[in-house]
Amino acid sequence: MTAASQTADFQSLDQFRAALADLPGPDAGALAAASARNGQLTKPPGALGRLEDLAIWIGGWQGRERPKADAPQVVIFAGNHGVAARGVSAFPPEVTVQMVANFQHGGAAINQLSRAFGASMTVHPLDLDRPTADFTTQPAMTEAELCAALSIGWNAVNPQADVLVTGEMGIGNTTAAAAIACAILGGAPADWVGRGTGVDDHGLQRKACAVRDGLACHAGALADPLQVLRRLGGREIAAMAGAMARARVNRVPVVLDGFICCAAALVLHRAAPGALDHCVAGHVSAEAGHGRLLAALGKDPLLNLGLRLGEGSGAALALGVVQGAVACLSGMSTFAEAGVSGA
Amino acid sequence: MTAASQTADFQSLDQFRAALADLPGPDAGALAAASARNGQLTKPPGALGRLEDLAIWIGGWQGRERPKADAPQVVIFAGNHGVAARGVSAFPPEVTVQMVANFQHGGAAINQLSRAFGASMTVHPLDLDRPTADFTTQPAMTEAELCAALSIGWNAVNPQADVLVTGEMGIGNTTAAAAIACAILGGAPADWVGRGTGVDDHGLQRKACAVRDGLACHAGALADPLQVLRRLGGREIAAMAGAMARARVNRVPVVLDGFICCAAALVLHRAAPGALDHCVAGHVSAEAGHGRLLAALGKDPLLNLGLRLGEGSGAALALGVVQGAVACLSGMSTFAEAGVSGA
Repeated sequence: MTAASQTADFQSLDQFRAALADLPGPDAGALAAASARNGQLTKPPGALGRLEDLAIWIGGWQGRERPKADAPQVVIFAGNHGVAARGVSAFPPEVTVQMVANFQHGGAAINQLSRAFGASMTVHPLDLDRPTADFTTQPAMTEAELCAALSIGWNAVNPQADVLVTGEMGIGNTTAAAAIACAILGGAPADWVGRGTGVDDHGLQRKACAVRDGLACHAGALADPLQVLRRLGGREIAAMAGAMARARVNRVPVVLDGFICCAAALVLHRAAPGALDHCVAGHVSAEAGHGRLLAALGKDPLLNLGLRLGEGSGAALALGVVQGAVACLSGMSTFAEAGVSGA
Repeated sequence: MTAASQTADFQSLDQFRAALADLPGPDAGALAAASARNGQLTKPPGALGRLEDLAIWIGGWQGRERPKADAPQVVIFAGNHGVAARGVSAFPPEVTVQMVANFQHGGAAINQLSRAFGASMTVHPLDLDRPTADFTTQPAMTEAELCAALSIGWNAVNPQADVLVTGEMGIGNTTAAAAIACAILGGAPADWVGRGTGVDDHGLQRKACAVRDGLACHAGALADPLQVLRRLGGREIAAMAGAMARARVNRVPVVLDGFICCAAALVLHRAAPGALDHCVAGHVSAEAGHGRLLAALGKDPLLNLGLRLGEGSGAALALGVVQGAVACLSGMSTFAEAGVSGA
């Protein structure tokens, strides 16, 4: 265990940068052993398709020839956004705190999905009574606020989890995510905004205007991806980035969720080369920019079922695929064990 | 319960035809109740994408406003094929009986997937020491043999199962399935044959020749889909058709597997209008003709992960999606229950 694998209390962005500076890779021995085992199992070579590579990859990160996925962790972060005052959501901002209560009482989609796949789930409301500043006129967060959110995300991860899912809730956060994507990847604001929870054409126009205004306000200060996160993001987005980074340090594989989760991932991707090597895309959502964002991350989604809920729901659903993949690699008999003739 | 919902011992194809003549639809009241419930859940309308329609559809077939998927059933049928002597598989015919033993001892992929999703699993070897006749020179089965296989499939279904998966094992059976698809849907033999367990180019050519010879041998006798099944199919393919028909009579929703399963489904689809209304496509496989076959059945697959194993594996993997969908519809709180503001 290095110092970075312990809990953290980042006092500056440079401390977080330092944690990203020396990221571990997968366990090469376990990767080779899992791959060799896969080649001996009672099935034609390659017949389990993507499940084979997925399970071997998880084995590498977990350091196990026979990986496990029976103790996944789902962490949900919630934040409020100053930009919500610009009419960028179909729902009022008080829904964030109401939905946090719904998560805590077990009534949301992510509760059902976590239970269905045996995942533990924790909810982390982040200063909901203190929204971030409206990024169209000033930085969303101070450096201290960003560091606090990164630390909360970092510390929320159970280093013993088999697999991690990071989810979010925050009225207005598809607009913040679109601003992050547009700032880092370029293109027009309209390329990155989508219907979110279901805005109409006027709402969509307001989202594009907010992104345009935000990029104009912070022009010249967006070269550093962590500054993009601070100026345009939100606490729950930062916490997801912190959680994904911690998972990497502890070699916990991560299943990425939708557009907002992937905007957080994009920040890491640009802040440190290969920072997302421990991440697989759980699904591609119906949110307009998500497919494009996944392409920029070089990730091919496991599922494509038109979800656009957030909360980590698409990634949690993909835990079923992960569990099936791992069950096959870890539980099947070899040709020799079963006395089956090879090809 | 009608007579058709009980166990069966078909003595003639006309008896099986009679069982298909009066198929029940979904429970309209449960369908409406499930749909109304879905509209009140704590999420933006439509935000769970395909999961919403899937869960409502299952509710309709199960007759439940809150459907369940915690007791799925997987039934595996195994058969041997005379056409295997024509070199159409990468594996020798004795692998069928060896893999049945592997299923019985819990070592195959389908064992792991069934366990991962809490499904019961039964294996039904069908006269493995007595392969069907080589369909390139004579009918694969007599009417009595076909009726026996249909009966075994029919009787293998647990009418209390929440969801049914039908799987198969049979060296040579992608060639039989290709012949069925080609006979019913037309096109060239080369359009319907694929690599199966992994044949090389010469094997692929032998498969196409076998389909061509089979269609020539039975020309003029293939207008009736049940005759196509008898002349070109196999016992495990017939048993899957029998199981799907029984599931329909008992309103058990079915998750379709790959190419061979869908060839069995195609026979029912052509034998009785709407006979597959209780079926959802679990996945699209890497076998060349499967996507085309699904299009002919009008089914959009839940998963696309490059599987090409058979055994019911792709459908069993899709049970995770089904369970996630059902968990959301049945377990989520409504806006009123959770005190969450609507859009």
